[in-house]
Amino acid sequence: MIQPQHHSHADVAHSLTQYQQQSPLIHCMTNDVVQTFTANVLLALGASPAMVIDAEEAAQFSAIADALLINVGTLTRDRSGAMLAAIKAANAAGRPWTLDPVAAGALDFRTTFCHQVLALKPAAIRGNASEIMALAKLEVSGRGVDSQHSSTAALQAAVLLAAETGAVVAVTGEVDFVTDGVRIISVHGGSPLMTRVVGTGCALSAVVAGFAALPGDRLLHIASACRVVALAGERAAAVAQGTGSFIPAFLDALYQLHPEALV
Amino acid sequence: MIQPQHHSHADVAHSLTQYQQQSPLIHCMTNDVVQTFTANVLLALGASPAMVIDAEEAAQFSAIADALLINVGTLTRDRSGAMLAAIKAANAAGRPWTLDPVAAGALDFRTTFCHQVLALKPAAIRGNASEIMALAKLEVSGRGVDSQHSSTAALQAAVLLAAETGAVVAVTGEVDFVTDGVRIISVHGGSPLMTRVVGTGCALSAVVAGFAALPGDRLLHIASACRVVALAGERAAAVAQGTGSFIPAFLDALYQLHPEALV
Amino acid sequence: MIQPQHHSHADVAHSLTQYQQQSPLIHCMTNDVVQTFTANVLLALGASPAMVIDAEEAAQFSAIADALLINVGTLTRDRSGAMLAAIKAANAAGRPWTLDPVAAGALDFRTTFCHQVLALKPAAIRGNASEIMALAKLEVSGRGVDSQHSSTAALQAAVLLAAETGAVVAVTGEVDFVTDGVRIISVHGGSPLMTRVVGTGCALSAVVAGFAALPGDRLLHIASACRVVALAGERAAAVAQGTGSFIPAFLDALYQLHPEALV
Repeated sequence: MIQPQHHSHADVAHSLTQYQQQSPLIHCMTNDVVQTFTANVLLALGASPAMVIDAEEAAQFSAIADALLINVGTLTRDRSGAMLAAIKAANAAGRPWTLDPVAAGALDFRTTFCHQVLALKPAAIRGNASEIMALAKLEVSGRGVDSQHSSTAALQAAVLLAAETGAVVAVTGEVDFVTDGVRIISVHGGSPLMTRVVGTGCALSAVVAGFAALPGDRLLHIASACRVVALAGERAAAVAQGTGSFIPAFLDALYQLHPEALV
Repeated sequence: MIQPQHHSHADVAHSLTQYQQQSPLIHCMTNDVVQTFTANVLLALGASPAMVIDAEEAAQFSAIADALLINVGTLTRDRSGAMLAAIKAANAAGRPWTLDPVAAGALDFRTTFCHQVLALKPAAIRGNASEIMALAKLEVSGRGVDSQHSSTAALQAAVLLAAETGAVVAVTGEVDFVTDGVRIISVHGGSPLMTRVVGTGCALSAVVAGFAALPGDRLLHIASACRVVALAGERAAAVAQGTGSFIPAFLDALYQLHPEALV
Repeated sequence: MIQPQHHSHADVAHSLTQYQQQSPLIHCMTNDVVQTFTANVLLALGASPAMVIDAEEAAQFSAIADALLINVGTLTRDRSGAMLAAIKAANAAGRPWTLDPVAAGALDFRTTFCHQVLALKPAAIRGNASEIMALAKLEVSGRGVDSQHSSTAALQAAVLLAAETGAVVAVTGEVDFVTDGVRIISVHGGSPLMTRVVGTGCALSAVVAGFAALPGDRLLHIASACRVVALAGERAAAVAQGTGSFIPAFLDALYQLHPEALV
């Protein structure tokens, strides 16, 4: 198997500079639990979030926005229809869309939905080990949103999934791996506190959706998205007294990130 | 055109005193992204928020509550029906209702809905320049929730809209303008950080909904609502390290506002 | 009537130790306004939250999770169906479920729903005085989410409701009372600031749902849940500048709670 590579600080700075200059408008069709936090993460980084959920409006908006995020955390029948309409409109307009397959493999309706939309050519997929293994149809034993597998164990699944779908796949955990099916980049950092605050993974997926819309090497950009969020997590954890003070510190750290300071 | 006037610190203090004494119960039918923040803003100021969304219950509750907020940020077909039922019940019970036309002009379904409910006599309308211009059917070029026009450019639209509907219209931006179609009050203050935190505008609309329920001069009260929120934003920005620490500081500033200290 | 008893610090420490060791997976079907805060409260205490709302998935997940929370704050027809499916699946799998009857007595649809699900044997019920009195069909005069009655006045209702349903009933207010219909435990503490932050009561219900799943004396465990949350509220209020800084301080206090420090 190909050896994971690091990417450089300059790569991260380059992606972040582009992101802040373009300030992408990201259409987030995400779960009920993380909407506010996701919006605040995107705003802190200088992007523009918008949540539009009616099927007709979602299709209209996906053609206007720069990127689309589909997160199935609180999927319902109604929302799945609106999401399909938005994905098709995004594809027709040439906008990249990103899938966050929350708890895929553990619950049937969303698992079926995720497999269905994989055929609609996501630009990126961001999940934990169990979710990525479920999408790649490797054996999995999750019982919900927390991954029962290390991200290393899921690396093989990620490479397979990327090769099959053409998406850049980010499988995140203690170490994140980002792959296009040929190259693999490993991203270190972050903090265990991030797993004790709801929505850090979901918000990362929204950031990934935005970075996937940048011109240039999508694999590098998405690895940069993972590194940016991990770095903010480290900085917040260094000053937090617990999970409560972590949240504002994390948003402040994202807000304070300057590309030139990363190099 | 009529020249905008300032209102006095004493006017603001007077409105805030009434608000805190009456502690209005505000029925918020608002978007998914800002519900928690909206509730916490109202609670910090001493009002009581409640979110009731089933059509039958929403109609029942609108006749009990002191004021109703309609925010179309995540409008769906189901919710539009429940909102209509709530507006009609509020009108029948003589309770004022306030419209926040999020992204009106940019997306068709909500634009049609907003034009439809304008006929149902809102007491107040709070939006950004693009939204207010769209409601007044002036030319507009927004592509989502962020205003593409300065609030000064929208002042003419606001005056027209107020004259046509009988509502007090607040068009907010770097400077806020509040008008009843005859008088215009300009409100200065706030902070650019407020545009980097989701829900500050939507929460202002909920505060406006509550101030619209006070007895006396509605134009002055709604200008006071704008000033109260701008003032809390200034104070929070003065101590915040970024958008994350801005949020608790903003709620603290609202909580700490005492009318006697404003004069 | 039986006299309320205090429970000991050792009882609280014992329950909390079990809770942190078991890290229960709690299926929260709760209202739109408090989802993020509820999840962060559970995570801060070391439990795992998950929100699953589609009827089919909710039934599937309730049989996997350790406990189920049903909160009717933003009940709709669709959600009531999904909640019924989840309750029945939880009962079939032998998982305890907890009811938070937000605004029962004030609004008809939810009141009818709450009376209907009382027959489905909740393990626990957590509400304010007005809500518990409404469930027990005693006279009530609430107009929404804030209780118009002191928890002492509702104690009789709580004992009746517990005796009738077999649930442990927690009626919370300035003093909390927890009863199984035979024994009564009073829990002191907390802070008035908790009533000025949205979701503290709803999040307590989610904590109660988790503690109801612990082996041993359910009455003691649920009283411990009330005490744990009250204690975190006291500690947060002691350092907060207002309602904004209360929120991260409250989550930090929950995160920092160590059973051995309680004895």
